[in-house]
Amino acid sequence: MEGEPTRIMLAVNQSTIKGYPHPSISSKRAFEWTLQKIVRSNTSGFKFLFLHVLVPDEDGFDEVDSIFASPDDFKQLKQRDNARGLQLLEYFVTRCHEIGVACEAWLKKGDPTEVICLEVKRVQPDFLVVGSRGLGPFKKVFVGTVSEFCAKHAECPVITIKRMADETPEDPVDD
Amino acid sequence: MEGEPTRIMLAVNQSTIKGYPHPSISSKRAFEWTLQKIVRSNTSGFKFLFLHVLVPDEDGFDEVDSIFASPDDFKQLKQRDNARGLQLLEYFVTRCHEIGVACEAWLKKGDPTEVICLEVKRVQPDFLVVGSRGLGPFKKVFVGTVSEFCAKHAECPVITIKRMADETPEDPVDD
Repeated sequence: MEGEPTRIMLAVNQSTIKGYPHPSISSKRAFEWTLQKIVRSNTSGFKFLFLHVLVPDEDGFDEVDSIFASPDDFKQLKQRDNARGLQLLEYFVTRCHEIGVACEAWLKKGDPTEVICLEVKRVQPDFLVVGSRGLGPFKKVFVGTVSEFCAKHAECPVITIKRMADETPEDPVDD
Repeated sequence: MEGEPTRIMLAVNQSTIKGYPHPSISSKRAFEWTLQKIVRSNTSGFKFLFLHVLVPDEDGFDEVDSIFASPDDFKQLKQRDNARGLQLLEYFVTRCHEIGVACEAWLKKGDPTEVICLEVKRVQPDFLVVGSRGLGPFKKVFVGTVSEFCAKHAECPVITIKRMADETPEDPVDD
């Protein structure tokens, strides 16, 4: 029954509390859950595909106190964003390496929901795992949930993993 | 990383085309997908929990040409329903036995969506697998989909497996 490993795509994001390069509680939880409940000891049977979507900073708040004197300054800014995204992916790739599970990781830029669905179409994983903050219907209206959109629109089976109750920050919208 | 097996609950139903005791295309597909993509060769790492919900026949069409002469006739009717449900479960339990995966199977009566969510609460599986006919939004309004309700309301991670395109009957509402 073995053969090609089962390809699990995992969409990961950064912690909104600690910022880059720390993974969000829900990304970490989704990853650890998948290891514990699906991969288990069968490390050669699975391959992780980690995708992180860099969201263009519409507000530009981070750049408010910076001085831009040349086109190169903007280039550096973009490089910094990429570097942060890479550090985030490094966390997951390092964990896989320690455990001995195959993986690939890559960055994309854009709207997370759209990009995740497009990447599913392109890469055709066996299934997609997304972490979820488990927000109630009221909070959802204002925050939007990537997990719900993907579960509905991604062209592969999707499994949504909620944060554990004891890991939820004071404001559930965080992280 | 082993220890207690991962408990996968699978809600199964009968084929609407062939009737009892044949499993629906989507139940069979959800089961085979889980074996192939999740269980793989790690048969000792997982346990299936099969639930079939018997839906009380509101129309009683099946009984239109029957003659009821005593209370026992009604009792027999109920026994027949249970027997059919058991034959459906037998299909899945036999497959598990052949492959060497542990399993349990049981019947409940009621509204499938409600009963599945209640049983998830009671049994606390690691995750729930539901098959889906993959109906479009128009057909869904009239038919309702158990899978969507469960994905939203079940208190555990849910993975929805659609039928393969080449297995879809002429009328997608069927089976």
